[in-house]
Amino acid sequence: MAPPAAFEAQETLPQNNLLNSDTASHRSKVTVIGSGNWGSVAAKLIASNTLRLSTFHDEVRMWVYEETLQSGEKLTDVINQTNENVKYLPGIKLGKNVVADPDLENAVKDANMLVFVTPHQFMEGICIRLLGKIRSDAEAISLVKGMEVKMEGPCMISTLISQQLGINCSVLMGANIANEIAVEKFSEATVGYRQNREVAERWVQLFYTPYFIVTAVQDVEGVELCGTLKNVVAIAAGFVDGLEMGNNTKAAIMRLGLREMKAFSKLLFPSVKDSTFFESCGVADLITTCLGGRNRKVAEAYAKNGGKRSFDELEAEMLQGQKLQGVSTAREVYEVLSHRGWLELFPLFATVHEISSGLLPPSAIVEYSEKQVRSF
Amino acid sequence: MAPPAAFEAQETLPQNNLLNSDTASHRSKVTVIGSGNWGSVAAKLIASNTLRLSTFHDEVRMWVYEETLQSGEKLTDVINQTNENVKYLPGIKLGKNVVADPDLENAVKDANMLVFVTPHQFMEGICIRLLGKIRSDAEAISLVKGMEVKMEGPCMISTLISQQLGINCSVLMGANIANEIAVEKFSEATVGYRQNREVAERWVQLFYTPYFIVTAVQDVEGVELCGTLKNVVAIAAGFVDGLEMGNNTKAAIMRLGLREMKAFSKLLFPSVKDSTFFESCGVADLITTCLGGRNRKVAEAYAKNGGKRSFDELEAEMLQGQKLQGVSTAREVYEVLSHRGWLELFPLFATVHEISSGLLPPSAIVEYSEKQVRSF
Repeated sequence: MAPPAAFEAQETLPQNNLLNSDTASHRSKVTVIGSGNWGSVAAKLIASNTLRLSTFHDEVRMWVYEETLQSGEKLTDVINQTNENVKYLPGIKLGKNVVADPDLENAVKDANMLVFVTPHQFMEGICIRLLGKIRSDAEAISLVKGMEVKMEGPCMISTLISQQLGINCSVLMGANIANEIAVEKFSEATVGYRQNREVAERWVQLFYTPYFIVTAVQDVEGVELCGTLKNVVAIAAGFVDGLEMGNNTKAAIMRLGLREMKAFSKLLFPSVKDSTFFESCGVADLITTCLGGRNRKVAEAYAKNGGKRSFDELEAEMLQGQKLQGVSTAREVYEVLSHRGWLELFPLFATVHEISSGLLPPSAIVEYSEKQVRSF
Repeated sequence: MAPPAAFEAQETLPQNNLLNSDTASHRSKVTVIGSGNWGSVAAKLIASNTLRLSTFHDEVRMWVYEETLQSGEKLTDVINQTNENVKYLPGIKLGKNVVADPDLENAVKDANMLVFVTPHQFMEGICIRLLGKIRSDAEAISLVKGMEVKMEGPCMISTLISQQLGINCSVLMGANIANEIAVEKFSEATVGYRQNREVAERWVQLFYTPYFIVTAVQDVEGVELCGTLKNVVAIAAGFVDGLEMGNNTKAAIMRLGLREMKAFSKLLFPSVKDSTFFESCGVADLITTCLGGRNRKVAEAYAKNGGKRSFDELEAEMLQGQKLQGVSTAREVYEVLSHRGWLELFPLFATVHEISSGLLPPSAIVEYSEKQVRSF
């Protein structure tokens, strides 16, 4: 008599284990570099998949910038004992297979999949420390938002990683509020990859869960620029909110912003695809950022005060030391626009900087229609 | 001595008048068919331009479905005496050159530009009454939202007008909350035209003001379908709000909705352009409708009640007799999808109908990820 189905499944288990141990050396090994709010959520997503899928080693190593907690304990010790990042993502279990490691070199030495998710200002220093310390076959992905836009063009984090470490680098961006994903609310993200579709699929496998849908597009620059430029549009949206101009005007400003994001990205990188802006990294992240988010919030306060209190002052009061990316990105974008003679092509971007630097009143956000008609 | 500049300008005035009277017979004459909230705002926009531009007759005739007001006065008389549509747009001056006319045939007889802006259920009857009564060289534009989607495909209002009256018909759609445009808050709209760019430019001239930016795209079907399908997405967005799932999830659902709007329109009309969905009629109208709007609002209440109170019941309670377009459009779209075997291609549209008809609970709105991955 044939054994019941459940028994059959048990019978085959040892074989699977054998197979797994055979292929163990070929399994991908993942290290997450960064352990803030978003880094911890990324580790949680990844850890659920490395356990489930035989193509990955179970263990996910997470480099943690070591801190001593008020209790006197080390943050890494607490994470490893409790499976929780009690400082940056309290109340959420990361998975028992997440191992916090305070030693950056040790954390990356065996990994062939490196997930970068630190504040962008630390990236250059981290790359210098990693030089010569990583596997030559490693692949990287950057979740770092907020790259800088220098006068000669944007300083892409993916390019920084590729150039400094000599490895290929993809990006993952999207409408990703870390605390909402942590509690498994439905969300989406976009992987931007350069050439190798198989590499992209491996990243999708690593992050994808039923509540976190990941799509890959062959457009690193488009995806990465979306993550930065949306903050400029969020400042504009905040002005509209502060002026109480209604949903109609806000939607118009968000649309014009999306159009300038697309046009700016394509002028800088002709390979950027229109379709990228329909992905989560484009329209969805823009919507999230313009509905909530600190850029929108402080810009709203700025407009409510008629521009009489500076962004610096409002930031200090409202953000407990965090800085607004939108205002500095707007200034950086403005420099690129002036430098290249493109100011008239981007009336919304230009106006955001002119308002936030005090040259124009907040109401100017909707008074550039003549410019706009001239340019498009 | 040369006269001062102001005098020169006066001197040339009679010449201009002479020129104008020469070309008067070539000037376009506009009639607005409809005088509700949006129709009255449209008349106001148009009237400001016909006064300003010599290519149009000053007078804008507005057909008004005659009503007797509580005061005993006729609505048309009051509009013509006060320049206000006291019933549907109180407090807003339409312009002295707007002439309310209760006689449909008389209102259209001299016009070569017909602006249709009535509830969609009246359009068929109006077309029948207009047959043989309009100028053969007339051009039409439809501002009517909420066309029906029949099993054999959508019943486009622009097609209805073209077929019944034998004239060309463009459309104007966008993120257009009438009361906000009435008080001159910044907004945008999209004209969809079929072939003749000059005709499109005439419509743009007629509607464009510094606070109402109009852009023309050669895509009647794409523009018109946006105006209908967004209501289905707004129902989905309302479910997310009712379930308090946050901005992240809401943005993801709006993005998936936009993608299905695009895919559905392109399957029905291969001529529909991707770029149309970046216009005001696309992403901006979707945002406005999903932020405010009655479809979103009633769907939110439906989800808050766990689907235990029907849409009919909530509509009756919340909308004072108005009906939700999103729910009926979702049902109509569902019929097209089943009929053509496309249900799996449109998990969001299908799920909206399955929820609103009581087959699935509201939480199903984010539980179709497996379907979604299968289909895209």
